[in-house]
Amino acid sequence: MKMSALIGERYKEWPSEAQLKSHGLLIRGGYIRQVGAGIYSLLTPAKRVAAKIEKIIRQEMDRIDGQEVLFPVVLPRELWDESGRYESVGKELLRFTDRTGHGMLLGMTHEEAAVHLARTEGKSYLKYPFMIYQIQTKFRDEARPRGGLIRVREFTMKDAYSFHTNWEDLEKYYYRCHEAYERIYKRAGLGHVVSVKSDSGMMGGAIAHEFMFLCDDGEDTIAICPECGYRANMEVATGVLAPVEDLGECREPERVPTPGTKDIESLCDFLGIPQNRLVKAVVFTREDTGKAVVVFVRGDLEVNEAKVRRLLGTNIAQRVDEDGSDHIAYGYIGPQGLDEGIEVWFDNSLKGMYNVVCGGNEVDVHVKNCDLRVYPDERFADLCKVTEEMVCPQCGKAHITLKNGIEVGNIFQLGDKYTKSMGMTYADKDGQLKTPIMGCYGIGVGRLLASVIEDGADDYGPVWPISIAPWQVHINAIKRADESVKEQADALYDQLCSAGFEVLYDDRDLSAGVQFADADLLGVPIRVVVSPRNLKQGVVELKTRDKSIAETVPVAEAASRVKEIAAMLQKRLDDQL
Amino acid sequence: MKMSALIGERYKEWPSEAQLKSHGLLIRGGYIRQVGAGIYSLLTPAKRVAAKIEKIIRQEMDRIDGQEVLFPVVLPRELWDESGRYESVGKELLRFTDRTGHGMLLGMTHEEAAVHLARTEGKSYLKYPFMIYQIQTKFRDEARPRGGLIRVREFTMKDAYSFHTNWEDLEKYYYRCHEAYERIYKRAGLGHVVSVKSDSGMMGGAIAHEFMFLCDDGEDTIAICPECGYRANMEVATGVLAPVEDLGECREPERVPTPGTKDIESLCDFLGIPQNRLVKAVVFTREDTGKAVVVFVRGDLEVNEAKVRRLLGTNIAQRVDEDGSDHIAYGYIGPQGLDEGIEVWFDNSLKGMYNVVCGGNEVDVHVKNCDLRVYPDERFADLCKVTEEMVCPQCGKAHITLKNGIEVGNIFQLGDKYTKSMGMTYADKDGQLKTPIMGCYGIGVGRLLASVIEDGADDYGPVWPISIAPWQVHINAIKRADESVKEQADALYDQLCSAGFEVLYDDRDLSAGVQFADADLLGVPIRVVVSPRNLKQGVVELKTRDKSIAETVPVAEAASRVKEIAAMLQKRLDDQL
Repeated sequence: MKMSALIGERYKEWPSEAQLKSHGLLIRGGYIRQVGAGIYSLLTPAKRVAAKIEKIIRQEMDRIDGQEVLFPVVLPRELWDESGRYESVGKELLRFTDRTGHGMLLGMTHEEAAVHLARTEGKSYLKYPFMIYQIQTKFRDEARPRGGLIRVREFTMKDAYSFHTNWEDLEKYYYRCHEAYERIYKRAGLGHVVSVKSDSGMMGGAIAHEFMFLCDDGEDTIAICPECGYRANMEVATGVLAPVEDLGECREPERVPTPGTKDIESLCDFLGIPQNRLVKAVVFTREDTGKAVVVFVRGDLEVNEAKVRRLLGTNIAQRVDEDGSDHIAYGYIGPQGLDEGIEVWFDNSLKGMYNVVCGGNEVDVHVKNCDLRVYPDERFADLCKVTEEMVCPQCGKAHITLKNGIEVGNIFQLGDKYTKSMGMTYADKDGQLKTPIMGCYGIGVGRLLASVIEDGADDYGPVWPISIAPWQVHINAIKRADESVKEQADALYDQLCSAGFEVLYDDRDLSAGVQFADADLLGVPIRVVVSPRNLKQGVVELKTRDKSIAETVPVAEAASRVKEIAAMLQKRLDDQL
Repeated sequence: MKMSALIGERYKEWPSEAQLKSHGLLIRGGYIRQVGAGIYSLLTPAKRVAAKIEKIIRQEMDRIDGQEVLFPVVLPRELWDESGRYESVGKELLRFTDRTGHGMLLGMTHEEAAVHLARTEGKSYLKYPFMIYQIQTKFRDEARPRGGLIRVREFTMKDAYSFHTNWEDLEKYYYRCHEAYERIYKRAGLGHVVSVKSDSGMMGGAIAHEFMFLCDDGEDTIAICPECGYRANMEVATGVLAPVEDLGECREPERVPTPGTKDIESLCDFLGIPQNRLVKAVVFTREDTGKAVVVFVRGDLEVNEAKVRRLLGTNIAQRVDEDGSDHIAYGYIGPQGLDEGIEVWFDNSLKGMYNVVCGGNEVDVHVKNCDLRVYPDERFADLCKVTEEMVCPQCGKAHITLKNGIEVGNIFQLGDKYTKSMGMTYADKDGQLKTPIMGCYGIGVGRLLASVIEDGADDYGPVWPISIAPWQVHINAIKRADESVKEQADALYDQLCSAGFEVLYDDRDLSAGVQFADADLLGVPIRVVVSPRNLKQGVVELKTRDKSIAETVPVAEAASRVKEIAAMLQKRLDDQL
């Protein structure tokens, strides 16, 4: 490919809309252009990287006996009615009707489509286990798409679905897939990926892991134990909390006026006590019944909505009492004297606490010296967000560390959530009809691409690992008007192309500075600079984009040296497997 | 791949919903499963064929300097507002709103997205010409999806867009692309493809060609001259009509009662005259003004709506007068005495005609002996459908032949339809801003796949050309319980896989009959049969799916002979290029 023909302008200026490194560089390097909110066109360099990532994913999926299929992007709603997700999933599921008024949707994940296929093709136990996967466009109507390719609405995803006759088999396969995912990241040159336990969320099911690329700019948070390797995302992370000491002698409850102290800070100031002596209340609405649920947590902690959702077994939303019909004194809620019809839960952080301040269930009133030991144990649960004050729940030896990350993959043990609701069965050895269980496994191609930039880019542009680089070799012909430069650069281009390399050839009549800046933005791993000055000495310059190599070699040896360097760069990746 | 693991049941029974050969075989062979009307999941064999077709297309697009990109499937309506197609395209364009109420649509073709990208990246004349293409999911909300993968709603399509500074350059590139398309069909092993002139329809633009795969079950009709090679689809085909002779002496017009003769047949019967002495009227509504247009055509011919649409420069629909407000005597319309405000056109077939029967513009009345020579020449145009009675308009030497076909590709010289409406410009050598012109080029992957089946399948299943076959070699191990069969078949499988072949290995404990029927449905080009009987003689059986080869070879030579046959089958395809 010659640069003079390559479509995609490159920019010096940092695009004002880009906060993330990858977002800015993808625009600056001519990789992506926005078409609408969270919707992008990929230009050739990005498409080439994506294709290589897809190829690696495909090889790894085939390696664990996956069979590639292709499900539709547009699905009839009936399938999602069967699973119940047509109703249960929020607005991120884009629903519409076709010309006949038939309900349709854009697939954001394809469990239903996979079961639709598998239930006619997996009718005998002899076929089990099996895994089918696709690499296909998905659409998720994100409320706030952002970060370039990190959080988009339309994206290419590899989604895989495995079917099993028993949990043991699912679990075995699940960890095979876990390993395949690790190989994918390593082969794509993405470092700093850890797998963390996660909440299965709207997918349903029991055990799930997210693969997190640790990165300061990541929008997800992960709890990590530096001692034992415990890792979990915020939705499921737990920690051991040092109990509050010095609660003193148990005193009698006392109602006190606390005017204008709707929030924790003002109340602490007003009463002159630390936050951990307070009981905070958060009110949610249960999606299933529409009723209110109050969750109490220690004043210095936060309620973890995901944990509450799992505990209640229904979706929840923070409750706002717009018209006062709740008859709840928002901001002054306490466990005592609260309407008895209201469901109440306490976070474990409050276990054993007394002499604490609670709301008085009356505006501008709190109660001092409350004793929470009177509430039954079964109303206490782990409902708070983990903090760095907490100690690892696994080894107990170190404090939790919170890290930011970008989710670059997820795997779920779904169990029978979809197979059961969609009536999928297989005939067992003895002819009995049984319900299979499922796992599902996703990787977003574009997000992986962007993460590799976050991981490896320098100030000048991406540093593509050779395994996924848009081209492997970049030739800069400096002063190509010089006949010898043209001749040597053209010859090298032909030679390297014939040798099977993907070569980007900067044949433009531009200064070395402009050419090098463009080359940095395109991030091709091996660069060959042909210039009059070098040619006078009979050499060309070879550099790697990662700066590990910069040397001059005789022209005649250039191609074979490029081959060596390419093999070395590839070996570095392979050695990590 | 082992057959015991392959997902996708195969059926003996012809599926009741399938009229087309390809449709039936795709279901029977476990290639596709319907998810909704015109929406299919592809199973592994079909996905593998599709991937190979895509690879061929990609290579040929790259060969004509295409740059692969990826546009979004979901597009914001603004882009289509710019081009005007948001309004002008019918219900096949699936429109909906996202969670914020923003108008969106599913891309059915990507001219707008291509211009959106090209207008920021093609600002200098130095970049021209360039071509960008993608292989991506499209959605067209067809009113009547049918024929399996032939007419679907969701499909994978290669769509390419070229940009040029002048028509000469566009035309040159257009014919390069024409050649690339011919290579694609040949490489994919699809015979009987001809390119025909076509109407550019809703795409706009001037010159366009369709690539038609000639096939009795095709739903399109093409006019062909067997003498000179003239080819055109029905929408644009013309033909020379022998004039009606023996019109006799010009007689005076005469109004005659013709009760209950609303259609041509009953009128001819009633008057005892041949159809070519009648003048038939068809009424349309112009989309731009909503007004009526009457087109007269000779009674034995049909009006060609596409020609009328082009003539009028607006969309049209056949007009029905539901409430009688038109004051037109439908069924009895004639040129004389028709409301003067109504736009009237005559097909060239009526030129010079007299003594003909026209409607009397009054129910149950016709006029005999009408003289059409009184109408001005400029109201006559080519507006009828070509028939086999007509003579080739190009050479005049032979009658037109009508053939059925399936459209497997199309190319358009669009001109500035999109670039102008969307305000795309480039700076010319002298700095002047100019509007580029465009060509666009489409091939549907699934339809090509299905057409290859239509072209080559026998009664037992598809006969895949080796270039796109899901696997190249199919091993049948007959009575694998026999240790020597298992040993030899396993060894051959390993050997052929190591040699780089894609091998499907039937390792199931099933009868030869069942195995062979499945193999026929999977259509793999080279079959190796390992059976106890053959092994006793130290041989295996080699057969090609196309029946051109059936032989036994010593076990030790099997792999090298497979290699030879594969090369020979590939050469047969290459020789056509």
